[in-house]
Amino acid sequence: MKIAVLGTGSVGTTIGDKLIALGHEVMMGSRDATNPKAAAWVEAAGAGASQGTFAAAAAFAEVLFNCTAGLHSVAAIEAAGAGNLAGKLLLDLSNPLDFSAGFPPRLNPVSSDSLGEQLQRAVPALKVVKTLNTMAAPIMVDPSLVPGDHVVFVSGDDAEAKAQATMILTEGFGWKHVVDLGDITTARGTEGWLLLWTRLYGALGTPFFNLELRMGKQG
Amino acid sequence: MKIAVLGTGSVGTTIGDKLIALGHEVMMGSRDATNPKAAAWVEAAGAGASQGTFAAAAAFAEVLFNCTAGLHSVAAIEAAGAGNLAGKLLLDLSNPLDFSAGFPPRLNPVSSDSLGEQLQRAVPALKVVKTLNTMAAPIMVDPSLVPGDHVVFVSGDDAEAKAQATMILTEGFGWKHVVDLGDITTARGTEGWLLLWTRLYGALGTPFFNLELRMGKQG
Repeated sequence: MKIAVLGTGSVGTTIGDKLIALGHEVMMGSRDATNPKAAAWVEAAGAGASQGTFAAAAAFAEVLFNCTAGLHSVAAIEAAGAGNLAGKLLLDLSNPLDFSAGFPPRLNPVSSDSLGEQLQRAVPALKVVKTLNTMAAPIMVDPSLVPGDHVVFVSGDDAEAKAQATMILTEGFGWKHVVDLGDITTARGTEGWLLLWTRLYGALGTPFFNLELRMGKQG
Repeated sequence: MKIAVLGTGSVGTTIGDKLIALGHEVMMGSRDATNPKAAAWVEAAGAGASQGTFAAAAAFAEVLFNCTAGLHSVAAIEAAGAGNLAGKLLLDLSNPLDFSAGFPPRLNPVSSDSLGEQLQRAVPALKVVKTLNTMAAPIMVDPSLVPGDHVVFVSGDDAEAKAQATMILTEGFGWKHVVDLGDITTARGTEGWLLLWTRLYGALGTPFFNLELRMGKQG
């Protein structure tokens, strides 16, 4: 499958590497067609890897991953172009984290909006599925790094797009427990989790953890 | 021990019942000394239970539980009075949830402040430990309702107060896994978790769940 990975950071390269390993053709998209970080990734990733602008990557792809830094994600999607995105699935992995003042990052989630919804509103014909934004990048593509029945969430308005995203998560990345939270407004929940995730990172001294849901009985 | 439970809602009565069952003397505090919900609880709870104003309950108590609705918690602490609270442990169970527009509640956590910190600032000589605000009330006092190694968090500036709170959680309420997130600023994390908790409640169809942390290894 032809897949665009938008973003050249550690999430983008981790996702790109995994998709190449799975046999997909991957174009890494960035603001500049000759972005040196994307070029380095293409050289390391080998056959099947290419780079281009956000718009070129979106035009190339059947499916897209948004791995841009959250503060720049809306601009990236707008640069990709509504015409290149219409009808396509975008897995949105971003979080609106502001690292300008160090760690823990600034993050001000609200119960009335989310970055996932902002991307959906920016291009209504795009099928946004918020997912994989709740754990460290290595765990995203190799959930076996963490023991137990830990979970990944999906949020989105389009049932078929969520099913396609879930198939990528399970058959591609090896996830066993995908929790469908509901429509794209539920992205407010997983983006809000980052407030706790960043504090757990600090307390545990490692980002290599994830959450498992334990169901109880009424008291 | 003499304990004040501030608040007359389901969290307050659940905590009050458990503390009475453990043999403590419990005064339920509210705005009015004759609050009818507190009176009903006192009658049902029997020996060891009493009621009073926030100030009377604070004066009575060695340890306090803040079980008021989050939007009213600062006012409750101010009404309790700094002189009645100085040097005492307050377990803060509140979340700044606004249910005025229905479910899910409005909640706008920020990475720069939390309700726990607001209470700590309101009475600097009070020893605030944020805890138990991350799960449904029945689970707070009976973690065996949920299987597995699910967790409760503590956040606070005073190490001795956190140790005392942890002893209440483990020896009193039966918690096996208490995660110390750090100082009171880490209450921003657990209050933020409510954004995901409310969405999980919606998706799972029950509030009877909790999270377990799964530690992995670096990829």
